[in-house]
Amino acid sequence: MESKQQVVLGIDIGGTNTVFGYVTEDGKMVNESSMQTHGNDSADIFFPRLFVEIDKLRAALDSSSEVVGIGVGAPNANYYSGRVEQPPNLKWGEVKFIDLLAPHFNVPVTLLNDANAAALGEQQFGSARGMKNFIMITLGTGLGTGIVVNGQILYGENGFAGELGHLTIEKDGRLCNCGRQGCLETYVSATGIKRTAFNLLGTLNDESKIRHLNYEEITSKQIAELARQKDPIAVNAFNYTGEILGRALSNAVTYFDPQAIILSGGLAEADELLFVPTIHSFEKNLLNVYKGKVRILKSSLQNGRAAVLGSCSFVKSTVNNNLNKLAK
Amino acid sequence: MESKQQVVLGIDIGGTNTVFGYVTEDGKMVNESSMQTHGNDSADIFFPRLFVEIDKLRAALDSSSEVVGIGVGAPNANYYSGRVEQPPNLKWGEVKFIDLLAPHFNVPVTLLNDANAAALGEQQFGSARGMKNFIMITLGTGLGTGIVVNGQILYGENGFAGELGHLTIEKDGRLCNCGRQGCLETYVSATGIKRTAFNLLGTLNDESKIRHLNYEEITSKQIAELARQKDPIAVNAFNYTGEILGRALSNAVTYFDPQAIILSGGLAEADELLFVPTIHSFEKNLLNVYKGKVRILKSSLQNGRAAVLGSCSFVKSTVNNNLNKLAK
Repeated sequence: MESKQQVVLGIDIGGTNTVFGYVTEDGKMVNESSMQTHGNDSADIFFPRLFVEIDKLRAALDSSSEVVGIGVGAPNANYYSGRVEQPPNLKWGEVKFIDLLAPHFNVPVTLLNDANAAALGEQQFGSARGMKNFIMITLGTGLGTGIVVNGQILYGENGFAGELGHLTIEKDGRLCNCGRQGCLETYVSATGIKRTAFNLLGTLNDESKIRHLNYEEITSKQIAELARQKDPIAVNAFNYTGEILGRALSNAVTYFDPQAIILSGGLAEADELLFVPTIHSFEKNLLNVYKGKVRILKSSLQNGRAAVLGSCSFVKSTVNNNLNKLAK
Repeated sequence: MESKQQVVLGIDIGGTNTVFGYVTEDGKMVNESSMQTHGNDSADIFFPRLFVEIDKLRAALDSSSEVVGIGVGAPNANYYSGRVEQPPNLKWGEVKFIDLLAPHFNVPVTLLNDANAAALGEQQFGSARGMKNFIMITLGTGLGTGIVVNGQILYGENGFAGELGHLTIEKDGRLCNCGRQGCLETYVSATGIKRTAFNLLGTLNDESKIRHLNYEEITSKQIAELARQKDPIAVNAFNYTGEILGRALSNAVTYFDPQAIILSGGLAEADELLFVPTIHSFEKNLLNVYKGKVRILKSSLQNGRAAVLGSCSFVKSTVNNNLNKLAK
């Protein structure tokens, strides 16, 4: 009998898009596909849609491959409880994720926080390859964090470690969806930079194309494009964002003494517009003992891939561990 | 042949006092002694004095006991390098600690950062007994931190993890010995509360006994005594300190999701004067998902004991690991 190629089905649920595909043993994604998440839909609407897409994907699998597990990364997912708990950008409330998915499939299903999944993806295949101590920051609608310590994801006592998006960095600062004020993600995220740009329209007198756009229609990608064209408000918004991010990351280093901090997501795609002011502020604010030792790197994986690859490598290691236990 | 009782010699080097003694298998300290550290002396003066005291202690050991190791906790000590590196409160510069001590003794010597040693002491014998995820904060001349994740001390990539005393909590804030501004320990420490009290003398009009004392002579212990007598400046200084500490700790929780945060040192001895405003500010600033889940506890070990006990349990486990390896 010919041995089949083992693949893992990876799913990354984001606020805007849900990406899925098969991941092979060497980290290649095949049969990749995606669907819009429609964050305002309830879970009752989202999951039947997801199942249809996954069933299509499974039907399309050629007979030489075998699915050995399903790895999912999702916002506000808790590895310990197997639940997604009140994601601010998805109107799901609490979803018993593993209980919901597992009966639908006859293979192991694992659930990870999306930023933790991305951290594992970077560690296996991306910018953090071979690293044992690093921090992963995903800059999307919000700011997600995956922290790796001694080679392992830091889950904390209840599975809620790594919520740096909700670090209070400004007392009495911007209102956050979490109900508090001054959270890092109200400044540093796709939404945060929009808020900054519109604040700056009020504070400064510079001409700017942003003055002709409304808040609802502009995106962080457009702000990046305008900054590349030297639009002064857009440039200023990136400098402001980088200053705050660099300061926050210099504080994170005093906790972890990491090798590197990896930035991914839409805002990281702005490259030097974000990285130059971030690294400047980071090094300026760093305690002497860490200076020059901690790198700030961009994810080397295509946007959205890190979490899928990470989820898959995680479920794969879970499957292998179980096989090893059975073999003993 | 009668088997001897195995003891470990524990040494805790503090900015003011150096404490040493033997620790038995069940965590009892015997033959305890101490000497003044004289932080302004160079290492060339300190170490010969320390060796004399240790030799006295060894001579006093009864013949039924056997020293199996020496565990040392010191400020700015690096477990990986075996060095003490530029402690701000000791005029030592860099000391190759293990290289200096090991030839003097014929047993294994281990060096830990004092706050890491204290964390292990609390985990073995104190308020963190049985805990796998907690943060230890020592409030002395400065603010030290030991972080335990999954039951293990968090060292970081270069052994410098856990320097929360140098979290920047106030942009353009108080000048710190580290050369930066707004570090947590310039507010929350024995020195920090003095600075706060003297700031408040300028800001407020209240009568206060502190108005009759000078900055150089007053201690944090006196401020605590005056606060107990309802001196308004002293009470205010503790409330201000607790507010800042609570806010900083609520941020620390978003990194680690710990079970508890343990406070020790002189300032923690002020009990409810410090703990009431700290816990109030902590719970107020905490992200919802952590509320009511993280305890702020006082060290249950006598001041200075935690680090000695922790250093000893650490060297003991090192000795045992080596014995196990030899046995294989």
